[in-house]
Amino acid sequence: MERQVIKVGLLGLGTVGRGVYRILIDNAESIKQRVGIELEVKKILVRSLEKNRGLDLPEGILTSNLGEIVDDPEINIVVEVLGGTNPTLDYVLEALRKGKSVVTANKDMVAEHGERLFAAAQQNNCDLLFEASVAGGIPIIRTLKQSLAANRIQEVFGIINGTTNYMLTKMTQEGSEFDDVLKEAQAQGYAESDPTADVGGFDAARKIAILSSIAFNTRVPLSRVYTEGITKISAEDIAYANELGYVIKLLGIAKSRDEGVEVRVHPTFIPKAHPLAAVGDVFNAVFVRGDAVGDTMFYGRGAGEMPTASAVVADVMDAARDLVRNVPGIIGCTCFEHRPVLEVGQTFSKYYIRLKVSDKPGVLASIALVFGNKEVSLKSVIQKEATGKTAELVLVTHRVQEQNVQDALMDIKQLSSVIEVANVIRVEGEE
Amino acid sequence: MERQVIKVGLLGLGTVGRGVYRILIDNAESIKQRVGIELEVKKILVRSLEKNRGLDLPEGILTSNLGEIVDDPEINIVVEVLGGTNPTLDYVLEALRKGKSVVTANKDMVAEHGERLFAAAQQNNCDLLFEASVAGGIPIIRTLKQSLAANRIQEVFGIINGTTNYMLTKMTQEGSEFDDVLKEAQAQGYAESDPTADVGGFDAARKIAILSSIAFNTRVPLSRVYTEGITKISAEDIAYANELGYVIKLLGIAKSRDEGVEVRVHPTFIPKAHPLAAVGDVFNAVFVRGDAVGDTMFYGRGAGEMPTASAVVADVMDAARDLVRNVPGIIGCTCFEHRPVLEVGQTFSKYYIRLKVSDKPGVLASIALVFGNKEVSLKSVIQKEATGKTAELVLVTHRVQEQNVQDALMDIKQLSSVIEVANVIRVEGEE
Repeated sequence: MERQVIKVGLLGLGTVGRGVYRILIDNAESIKQRVGIELEVKKILVRSLEKNRGLDLPEGILTSNLGEIVDDPEINIVVEVLGGTNPTLDYVLEALRKGKSVVTANKDMVAEHGERLFAAAQQNNCDLLFEASVAGGIPIIRTLKQSLAANRIQEVFGIINGTTNYMLTKMTQEGSEFDDVLKEAQAQGYAESDPTADVGGFDAARKIAILSSIAFNTRVPLSRVYTEGITKISAEDIAYANELGYVIKLLGIAKSRDEGVEVRVHPTFIPKAHPLAAVGDVFNAVFVRGDAVGDTMFYGRGAGEMPTASAVVADVMDAARDLVRNVPGIIGCTCFEHRPVLEVGQTFSKYYIRLKVSDKPGVLASIALVFGNKEVSLKSVIQKEATGKTAELVLVTHRVQEQNVQDALMDIKQLSSVIEVANVIRVEGEE
Repeated sequence: MERQVIKVGLLGLGTVGRGVYRILIDNAESIKQRVGIELEVKKILVRSLEKNRGLDLPEGILTSNLGEIVDDPEINIVVEVLGGTNPTLDYVLEALRKGKSVVTANKDMVAEHGERLFAAAQQNNCDLLFEASVAGGIPIIRTLKQSLAANRIQEVFGIINGTTNYMLTKMTQEGSEFDDVLKEAQAQGYAESDPTADVGGFDAARKIAILSSIAFNTRVPLSRVYTEGITKISAEDIAYANELGYVIKLLGIAKSRDEGVEVRVHPTFIPKAHPLAAVGDVFNAVFVRGDAVGDTMFYGRGAGEMPTASAVVADVMDAARDLVRNVPGIIGCTCFEHRPVLEVGQTFSKYYIRLKVSDKPGVLASIALVFGNKEVSLKSVIQKEATGKTAELVLVTHRVQEQNVQDALMDIKQLSSVIEVANVIRVEGEE
């Protein structure tokens, strides 16, 4: 091909968009040498042409008219960093229909509308790359699609939400309560004023839906991801975890089984010696187990202007390479299987169960009996006096099917000696 | 292109070769779906046609004649898992000259003859892929070449030799001495009967030469890698490290500075809280710092039949994709800069220095004076009585240029009160 430069259109100039623009300018020379051709941002779609962006922008590069990007035959790559799905999805579909390769950092859009997007990309013979949509700067998508492609992936699980990891790290280090740490995280800008997407696990759910779809080659709809946040985690749970040799992390977990795939997000006890246990603050890490490679882990910053932009620009470089060689779409959608997503009741785990009970003889026996009837066998029991009249009972089960635990807990709640099922947290990461 | 199958020739059927063959057979269906075409091993070069391979091999697949692979126009990809450089280098050059894409797991060959190999690959428009040559199953080459390509890489350092990491982990856990742990590692098959390549740091040196060449886009000759092994590490050093809040790891370290690049292999104190500190046993991990992405780490098994084969087969799949799309060589050699490799005297580090001294007044003062004269400032000092007449002095310096430390040590060895400079170990991984 004869072209001297590949032109890029940017949709959005928020935090990540600014980072993308900066990298394309600051590292232009090394990018050119690696791709073999120059990359130039020709147009940037923004809502307001007046707003000060804190960037030294060429005259006329900003536009509020989508057509100036998608209808410009000179622009071959469209980078979507607007976020949200409305009107973003329409913009991206329009770009694909016009034959542009698309790079996106948008986990909501990919998780919710992946099928439509990949179909449009394939139909129009375009790249649709989305490394930045999961775990920011950690190159986990390309790793699953290419580097570990020789493996049948058995498990993918990890810390894929920085806000909650920051909060749980603080709670662990300081013994503080959820509400206090949330306020602190909000003050420091690590948590949004409406923190639901993070602390409710919904952000992580989108990411594990994307990761599991790629790892297991089957589309995992977001609606099928069992999701539980960290709002119920108390300082007591953190302290018990520590006493039992664990730390609590919010994990996205995906496992391949003969019957189908398990995909879930919930707070999890993991052993202190597990590589994920040492991943603190806002860092993310994804653990992958493949049939050939065994255990691997990928660690880095899961969000932020420059780490996310690093992933976006790497995708832009791949898309540009494919355009130079005239092979866009060389690695397309890999969801060529159709496997069932299992109900959470069908999953297997160990369980930490904390109960508030009356402090009188025979209570433990009656509880143990209920678990025994539901074939839930107990690995360890801690009993502590709470006040004079109540006691706290902490149980850890052996590996057992979730449905059995749920059934047992239904019965246990009926026992007159049980005041409250204070918390139930799954235990992962050990044999 | 019209072909239905891409045929592969295997050079070698040792441990890794067997793993490659197994994955190509066992995961054939998913590999076909991911690449879009079937992969078939047509011929395998071996020395002995008679030896039992413990594999169910098709009649006639083995050959002891290289020509049956490199002269067969049906074979498009040659996988080199023979090891060594003689005659392997000639075989691989011959394959490239005949237009075959080559996948190799051979760190010796890539580190020592990379320039010739990449020139031959480029000339013949072939892929030359070598993910498995560094850190086995960890996809660090593709990560540096593609996923982090938007970054200027500032540092790459990591645990890239499993044998020494196993030994240092044992020494740390058990307080045992080097010689005892080496015998144990040899008995368990983790160390060779001649362990020099591993414990002398030479294996790690090859790998960091390859990694730094890719990270900094400049060819780093193996001869320019400063290399120090772990044979001098004693149980005492391990104990002092622990007391000071560190663990000892054999690291390959590469840093980019304005003046050039630093590339070295040596035992290193790293803080217990550093992500690399928790990487135990035979596991490898590579830490990468980029200007945009910040800190990242990649963890997994650095050797072994299946992890290494996982990396080889991923490369075979990439080569096959490129052949299907008729774009072999899409990501070629990236050494487009020519940067000096700095002398070890020009590097900067903190230093742990253990001295055996006479136990009499004024010794510390005289030693401190020498360091002061050479502008080496001390961060901490531990003094311990050894026997009645001698004492042990453990110093940790602030960050300082290596040459100053070496100069100071020359003078210190001359002091009558200094019996021995027992060990000097660099400290990395903290600001």
